[in-house]
Parts: sequence; structure tokens; C-alpha cells
Amino acid sequence: MPTTVKAFGAHDVRQSLTPLTIERRDVGPHDVKLDILFCGICHSDINFVGGDFGPLPVSPLVPGHEIVGRVTEVGSAVTRHRVGDLVGIGCMVNSCRACENCRAGQEQYCLKGHTLVFGSPDPAEPGAHTQGGYSEAIVAPEDFVVRVPDGLAPAAAAPLLCAGITVYAPLKRYGAKPGAKVAVVGLGGLGHLGVKTAKAMGAEVTVLSRSDSKRDAAAALGADHFATTGDGSAFTELANTFDIILNTISAPVSLKDYFGMLRLHGTMVSVGVTTEPMPLEVFPLLQNGRAYAGSLFGGIAETQEMLDFAAEHGVTAEIELIGAEDINTAYERILASDVRYRFVVDGASFAELKA
Amino acid sequence: MPTTVKAFGAHDVRQSLTPLTIERRDVGPHDVKLDILFCGICHSDINFVGGDFGPLPVSPLVPGHEIVGRVTEVGSAVTRHRVGDLVGIGCMVNSCRACENCRAGQEQYCLKGHTLVFGSPDPAEPGAHTQGGYSEAIVAPEDFVVRVPDGLAPAAAAPLLCAGITVYAPLKRYGAKPGAKVAVVGLGGLGHLGVKTAKAMGAEVTVLSRSDSKRDAAAALGADHFATTGDGSAFTELANTFDIILNTISAPVSLKDYFGMLRLHGTMVSVGVTTEPMPLEVFPLLQNGRAYAGSLFGGIAETQEMLDFAAEHGVTAEIELIGAEDINTAYERILASDVRYRFVVDGASFAELKA
Repeated sequence: MPTTVKAFGAHDVRQSLTPLTIERRDVGPHDVKLDILFCGICHSDINFVGGDFGPLPVSPLVPGHEIVGRVTEVGSAVTRHRVGDLVGIGCMVNSCRACENCRAGQEQYCLKGHTLVFGSPDPAEPGAHTQGGYSEAIVAPEDFVVRVPDGLAPAAAAPLLCAGITVYAPLKRYGAKPGAKVAVVGLGGLGHLGVKTAKAMGAEVTVLSRSDSKRDAAAALGADHFATTGDGSAFTELANTFDIILNTISAPVSLKDYFGMLRLHGTMVSVGVTTEPMPLEVFPLLQNGRAYAGSLFGGIAETQEMLDFAAEHGVTAEIELIGAEDINTAYERILASDVRYRFVVDGASFAELKA
Repeated sequence: MPTTVKAFGAHDVRQSLTPLTIERRDVGPHDVKLDILFCGICHSDINFVGGDFGPLPVSPLVPGHEIVGRVTEVGSAVTRHRVGDLVGIGCMVNSCRACENCRAGQEQYCLKGHTLVFGSPDPAEPGAHTQGGYSEAIVAPEDFVVRVPDGLAPAAAAPLLCAGITVYAPLKRYGAKPGAKVAVVGLGGLGHLGVKTAKAMGAEVTVLSRSDSKRDAAAALGADHFATTGDGSAFTELANTFDIILNTISAPVSLKDYFGMLRLHGTMVSVGVTTEPMPLEVFPLLQNGRAYAGSLFGGIAETQEMLDFAAEHGVTAEIELIGAEDINTAYERILASDVRYRFVVDGASFAELKA
């Protein structure tokens, strides 16, 4: 029999989230069920509820895709997890598992489209949509559940499931390592983990920010250097400097200014999404043989690798822990850039919500 | 004493080239002098003379940067070449040799700016400018002269010095090899060598062209597939297909349409230059973790490697051999796309020019 759980979600776009209940399906042979201990709040949760991606895919919609929980039940065929394990669920809970991208372990690029942890039609439950982590418990296929290693603080690890893998995957792919110079553009949820991750990989890290206001914060996170881009001088002073520019901001930038800071065969990689087209001139890419890339979170095996790396190097998010009743306020504060650097909801607080 | 040699050049932009004479400096300790046997005509020669890059850097200007010649004299300190050797000179004849890009063997990206084979202030001869390959003979530093291996037809090898390395370098860098799928956009001087080179590297090659008119030509060059982009259907039919899209055309393209054809972690690389900005949307780059790169010819060691590869695999240009007096006509025909695929000037014909 499905289980009714308390949750916090939206009934329509551009409305406050409210307490509600949702049904979680029975645990199938390949499923695990977990009590949600912590769930991070990512900007894309706000995009969904704010209508930036169109109407809600289902109503009500329960966001939340940075989940850490404790396994309470496993299906008869489950081999990867056991009751009592500390585990995580990120952006997706299924994919076709057959296309060339899935076979390559890059399920986030599933050519049939992956199943998001919330708001997607659920292949495991025809007619139903997935519902996310702003809730007491969740049921998901074991193959899309990762192990949270000992030594990672569960609350501070929750944001790794989306923000952490989103910065880890491109930093690794494009060569963050000792001797490499990495710039991180923007110092929010993604950017602060970009700094920590690039440093843990051994790179020399510069934070690029519009104004000087985040200079001390960058240093506190371990950044080696800080430069302001507001007056444009950094673009000249740091010409031909970086192997990687990790762009975490979700707004248009002047591409040629950033390209100019890439050294030989350097790559600028955007992980933030802006739908507004940016003018691109080819010539700055020809110089130094530069590249501009995109990257979308990461595959499941890569996510496990990232968590193991995070545990080994002590990489977790800087968080502010809140109760479920404070989610609407948290949304407002995120939109006002008033968070350092990630809100995480205490999963125990969902049980106390009054519908 | 400097030597006076016959040449063919321009006295101003947008004027016909005429016979003239230029001085070649004495052979210095590190120089080699060669009789020019063949010189290819590249579209960028036309850009210079046509004023697309501004006023002429020097008047008169002798273009030509795809040079194959025979060494006739070597300086006292020269170790790389001997009198009688068949050698080549491409786009550049010097660089700072000290910056990180030069030290990495990527002199084309010299941070101080490389010395073009024509039209650049010549560090070897203060006050003078370099003059190119539309001439009887040339003097250049041995380090920027490469060996043309036995087995390469000298006339058909000349275009390798610019067009050949321009396609070889990015194809190698971005993974053209057995199992890889490569698309070549445009089938001109660059594109036809792109097809041959990618095939020689073992890749499966598709030619993308606006209309059907080059289908047979693509097959004759060894392309495995051909698709027309004019009606847009290729963008859908070939979605998520290519590891590399080598864009050889010098005009704006619809980036998102081409990006959509890149499979997992594929790269589109432009080697043609358009100064017109193109609108770039980030989302198509995030899908499949795609990248868009630029590439500018190649380094000297890489150019030697390319020539050795070309000799081993029988890669040369398809050419139409002309005399110096036909250069103006050749320019007109290139601008009318009436060449398959490269004009090469017979070096012996410069001696017969009447000033």
C-alpha cells in the first residue's frame, strides 16, 4: 500500500508553498525507501515554482533535489543499499539506461530524457509524477541512489547532490589539478563549492566577482586570489591566465571578455543557465585555441565518485539549516542573494507541519 | 648583399596584383634560403589584398603562405636543413620563442604575436616587413622551416602548410580516430583536406553542405556520408551524432542547429573566421556536455608531424596548377567558389614575369 507522507509544495506557479501530503509508492523489487534527513534548496527549485520553466508540470509540486536520507526499506532484488545506510538522491531518479549516454554513465544526458526527482512522469508508477525532497520520505530505484560516505556531515553534504556534482564534473573534465589555474565566476551555492572543489583538486583558484564585497568570503573559502570584473580591468590584467573559467552565474556575460582570460587551450564552462542569447565572436576563441562548454550536473557513478572525493578532502557546503515552515522565506532570501551559501531543510521538520 | 627577386604583389587594397621585385635579405647564421617551387593561394591572401583586414600592412605586399621550396643556401649555424632539401614554410616565420605558448610548441598563439610570412615587421631585419611566397625565393629562420617528406608531391603538398595544418590540429586535438564520427562543414580548400585528414585518422566522415551539389565530390574525396543543411532536416536527422564538427566556413552559422548534432562531449570547432557575432544560447551546450572551440593553424612541430602523417597516409590537396600571371584570375574564381580545391602557383613562373 502506498504511504502518505507530509510534504511542502506549490499548487501553482508564483504562489507560496504550503504544507500538504503526497503518496509514496510501495517499495518495488529494485527500490529503496528512505527517511529524508536533509534537503538542500537549489535555485532551480525556485525557477520551477516561479514559473520560469512554464506551468507546473504537476499540481501540487513538491520540489527538492538535494536529498540525504537513511534507508528504511529495500526491495527484494536490491543489492546496492541496506536498511540503515546513509544515502543521497540528486536531480534524477531514472533514465532509459539503454542509450549511448546512459551506457557511458552519463545518465544526465539520457537521449530519451532522464526522470527528474520531481515533476517528471514516473516510469515506475504510470500516470504519476515524481515528487521531490521537501517531504518526510521518498522511494526511488536503487541505481539512482548513492552512498554518503562516513565522515561527511549529512546536512552539509546534501547540497553536494546537485551543486556539488555540477561543479565537480566540469572541473575534473577540463583539468582542474595541481598546476592548473581555475577562475570561479560568481560566489553563490555553486560558486562556493566550485572554489572548495577546485582547491581540493589542487588547482590555484581565483574568484571573479562584480564588486569587491565578496573578497573576504572568497579568502575564507580558500580561494588564492580575488578580482573584480565590474570595472573591466580584470579582463586586461588577467588576460591569458586561466585553464578553466567556471561560470556559475545564470545571467548573460560578455563572452569575449571572459574568453580573453583563458590561456592556451583553456576552457570556459557554464553551469548556470540563461535563456537569453549572448553574442559570440569567433576570433577570441581562435586565439589560444580556446573553448566554451556547457555541463549539466553529472552521472550517477560520477556523483558517487564526487561524494567519495568530498569525504576524502573534507568538501561540504556552507549551510544555513532551516525548518520546513521557513522555505518560503528562504526562497525570498535566495532571490535577494541573502544566503551564505545554501539553505538546507531539516527533514524532521516535515513531520511537524500542520496541513 | 640582399638579393632582388621577382614577385607578384599588391600596391594597394582592392587593386589587381602586378609583377614587381622585392629584396631578400642576406642569409644570416640561423637562416635558410629556398627557391620557391610552389605556393598555394589561400583565401586569407585575398582577404589581405581585398582590404578585409584593413589597409595593406606594407606596400607593396607580396602574399603567399603555403610554400614548398628547395634549400639553396644555409647559414653558418643551421643544423635542421641542408642545401638541396625539400622544405616548406607556412603562415609564420618567427615568434618570441619565450612565452608559455611558444615554449609549448604552439607558436601560432605566441603571446607577443607571431611574425606572419608576409606583412609583419620582420625581427630579422629592423624596419622591413616580411614578404610572402608569390616570389622566386625566400629567406627564413631555420626553426620555422619544415621538412617535406619524400613521397609527398611538392605541388599538392603546398596547401598543407596552411590549410592542412589548420584542419589537422583540431581534428587531432578533439579526437578524430577510429570509432569517432566527424562532420566537415563546407567543402572548399580547408574542407576537402578536412575530409581527407579525418579519414586518414580513421574517423567516419560526413560532409555537411547547404545544397546537394557537392555530394559526388564529397564521395570522391572519401567521405562516408553527405547531408544537406539547406532545408534544416539534417539538424534533426543527425541530432546527437558527431564527436567533432569541423566548421570550415567563414560566415555566420546557426550555432544551436550545429550544436544539436554533437553527441556526448562532442566539440564543434571553427577554423574559418567570421567577424560577425553569432547569437549563442547556453542550453544546447549544456545538453550532451558540448563544447565550441576555435583553432588557428598550428605550431611548427605539429606542422612537421602533420606533413609526416600526410606522407604516410597519402594526404595531399586537390590542386589546379597555375602560372603567376594567372593569380588575379584565380582570386576571382576563388571568390566565385570556382575551384576544386586549391590553386597552386608554379614557382618557376615568377622568373618569367615582366615588370
